[in-house]
Amino acid sequence: MILVNGESKAHIEISDRGFQYGDGLFETIEVRDGQAVFLERHLERLNSGCRRLQIPFPDAKLLSFEAKELCRQHRRAVLKIIVTRGSGGRGYRQPDRIQPTRVLSLHPYPDYPETYREQGVVVRFCATRLGLNPALAGIKHLNRLEQVMARSEWNDPAIQEGLMLDVNGHVIEGTMTNLFYIKNNRLYTAELVQSGVAGIMRGIIMILSADHGFPVIEHMFTKDELLSADEVFICNSIIGVWPVTQIEQKHFTVGPITKNIQIRLGRYAGDDCTEAG
Amino acid sequence: MILVNGESKAHIEISDRGFQYGDGLFETIEVRDGQAVFLERHLERLNSGCRRLQIPFPDAKLLSFEAKELCRQHRRAVLKIIVTRGSGGRGYRQPDRIQPTRVLSLHPYPDYPETYREQGVVVRFCATRLGLNPALAGIKHLNRLEQVMARSEWNDPAIQEGLMLDVNGHVIEGTMTNLFYIKNNRLYTAELVQSGVAGIMRGIIMILSADHGFPVIEHMFTKDELLSADEVFICNSIIGVWPVTQIEQKHFTVGPITKNIQIRLGRYAGDDCTEAG
Repeated sequence: MILVNGESKAHIEISDRGFQYGDGLFETIEVRDGQAVFLERHLERLNSGCRRLQIPFPDAKLLSFEAKELCRQHRRAVLKIIVTRGSGGRGYRQPDRIQPTRVLSLHPYPDYPETYREQGVVVRFCATRLGLNPALAGIKHLNRLEQVMARSEWNDPAIQEGLMLDVNGHVIEGTMTNLFYIKNNRLYTAELVQSGVAGIMRGIIMILSADHGFPVIEHMFTKDELLSADEVFICNSIIGVWPVTQIEQKHFTVGPITKNIQIRLGRYAGDDCTEAG
Repeated sequence: MILVNGESKAHIEISDRGFQYGDGLFETIEVRDGQAVFLERHLERLNSGCRRLQIPFPDAKLLSFEAKELCRQHRRAVLKIIVTRGSGGRGYRQPDRIQPTRVLSLHPYPDYPETYREQGVVVRFCATRLGLNPALAGIKHLNRLEQVMARSEWNDPAIQEGLMLDVNGHVIEGTMTNLFYIKNNRLYTAELVQSGVAGIMRGIIMILSADHGFPVIEHMFTKDELLSADEVFICNSIIGVWPVTQIEQKHFTVGPITKNIQIRLGRYAGDDCTEAG
């Protein structure tokens, strides 16, 4: 099921700048019991990304209405929202009057084993690096070749995620997740000022941890620092939190702080679903 | 007129990875007297870009046939060829069997005044920087948000192009052109190992200059070095060569080496059209 500017269709104009230049943004949202989880947060991030790219944000009420309509009958799925700058302009130059395109599509929820959440996952380091660009850092835009290239590096089904470094050798995130680590009872994640996507789940974990008197420290760190951590986990809006039990040859246990975050996150997401009702 | 995998249509599947992730490449080709100029070179570059991104190259003879058919009746136009990784895969992961999408479209030739070629153009420096990524440097991929953002910085019709620096402060290229400068009778252009697009016209100028005993020096240079040049020009497959007569407050004359390159390029392009017949 796909809605393009409110109409049910499966295609987009060739002239759409999303296709021509990756000139747009997207959100990937968990659908549970007929509801898009953390929908308002996703729409806020989309709005903020549109401001960064100077794309007029489509009507928030309309987006929210369409999203809810699409998800209503689905017990478990993934909702993807794409907003592009629409068609027009000459070359890279934007049209004088931008009419954004909005695409909402539903996808099957991935069949990840429940063991990933409980017993953790194995990850690797990717050779493909993230470029640096403060103008695009943090936002979830449609220029995703770096992630595609990184994800193409391995086929081993025993490895669930690849970690990406930036061109300066700082560990930033996974191809589809954000990364946290715990060392001496402090919680760290990458500072996303030059590259990376500031995930919704990452933001929620930062809020929950601060509320719990345990503020997350955003900074730049190397492979070595990560490998010396006590606990490591990855997160996104679809998987929630997966403990990392192995990074290449180095093993980690599923630690108490990671488990505690999973528990509080479960409660918080439950609240969101109730409120969204 | 648009051909998608050989069929006349104006739209593409939403699921196409070109739309979802900018997972593809493109070429912009001058059409003159019914012929796509330097078509074989463009198809070679497309092939090389496909190898870099691990996209199977569509049949070269078929692409060439479709391009020629599309251009046959057109005295002057622009042919754009897009090749994407097609649909499929889960998230960033590529499908096991890639079926690339090819899109050929014809566009009106831009109505640039002839004076630009003879009397030169005014350019500016953009604030938007080019990120660094050796994995993507040089190829003409569909992740073009940096160029879109840079081109959105000015509306003054007296300024014809914006020059982009990389995040380290090296001058790399224009938003839609490559950049050359001449100093003490030597010809320089940016080394495109970390960012930038290695344009077809740039490549031809390098070959012609080397043949003329005047090899182009590829290196990294700053704004100050560029501003101390004797001559400056920009180029691409559509505009050919435009002398630069002003970069912000600094003025340049249309110099003899730039003029000489324009003349030899005119002959060379003429030969290509004859051969292509």
